[in-house]
Amino acid sequence: MIIGMARWEPGAHGRMMAAAIALFTEYGYENVTVAQIAAEVGVTERTFFRHFTEKREVLFDGAGGLQNRVVELIAAAPPGGDPWTVTVDAMREMCDEFFDGRREQSRQRQRIIESANELQERELLKLAALTSAITAAHVERGCPANTSELVARAGVAVFTVGFGRWIDGPVRQFSDAIADVAAELHGAIAHSTRP
Amino acid sequence: MIIGMARWEPGAHGRMMAAAIALFTEYGYENVTVAQIAAEVGVTERTFFRHFTEKREVLFDGAGGLQNRVVELIAAAPPGGDPWTVTVDAMREMCDEFFDGRREQSRQRQRIIESANELQERELLKLAALTSAITAAHVERGCPANTSELVARAGVAVFTVGFGRWIDGPVRQFSDAIADVAAELHGAIAHSTRP
Repeated sequence: MIIGMARWEPGAHGRMMAAAIALFTEYGYENVTVAQIAAEVGVTERTFFRHFTEKREVLFDGAGGLQNRVVELIAAAPPGGDPWTVTVDAMREMCDEFFDGRREQSRQRQRIIESANELQERELLKLAALTSAITAAHVERGCPANTSELVARAGVAVFTVGFGRWIDGPVRQFSDAIADVAAELHGAIAHSTRP
Repeated sequence: MIIGMARWEPGAHGRMMAAAIALFTEYGYENVTVAQIAAEVGVTERTFFRHFTEKREVLFDGAGGLQNRVVELIAAAPPGGDPWTVTVDAMREMCDEFFDGRREQSRQRQRIIESANELQERELLKLAALTSAITAAHVERGCPANTSELVARAGVAVFTVGFGRWIDGPVRQFSDAIADVAAELHGAIAHSTRP
């Protein structure tokens, strides 16, 4: 749903990603060939496969960069920062860097992901990898493994819900949507009758 | 990791599930055939396939029942209960009903899931389905869709982390592990510097 949008380069790589999303949106993911995507940006199929291992990868190319950036930001957070605040702030910062000006493409990409089971599965795997990376980043800071995993899972939940609210809600920054969702989770849990 | 353990019937169905876990644990998931599982409990391969569509399904058979029970419990919660408390309490109740006395098998099953990518993917899909079902159950109670999804995702995070703590931590009830993890999430979020 989220994870492949990030940082389109201006070169052939980024143009293939943009062309793929436009073509998938117009004709359906299943109906578009790699040859069509390549033709759309004036490169050969072979060039496409130098950049992406298979058709669906053109939708997930940003995932690694996004994940690495969140991990970097968690590692760079001031020592002693509580894990939840560090996680939410890192995600917000990454969103400002990676998703600014990408709302429409993010929404289109999301609709494509929802259209095919294989893409949804791939997205789940990417989110699981992001969760593991955030967990490891907190362990690296000296946070207990159990707490690290819990905060990572809750953080990815906030990220995912925030993404949906950003692409389908009123126009604003993705990072503001995340702040709202984090505040809502705080409200739901802190004011529950459960201790 | 969690989701297929539940409610083994005493008949051939349950015996096939137990035999499969024992055989997978001893010889490895990839190396065990359906014929071996069937032979182990004295039925034919054909009988196996009357109960399970494919080999891996023997590990995920409980998922539907578990999900339905959580949904039932959320639906039956007192009106006006806050969504977070309702979610955690429903999961705890379900765990008492489904996982009591199943700690060792749950741990073995978890190790099998971790041994094969296709099983991990299947598990992610089952957890995604559980998340959707919990979301829908809260919407049905009149909770806004956004909050419902957020609480469902955070709830499944607590369930998943609680499962890991239950199978690998000191012996106790699964539902007590969930209560501890829910309290820890409360602590991490309510006492963070982030509002």
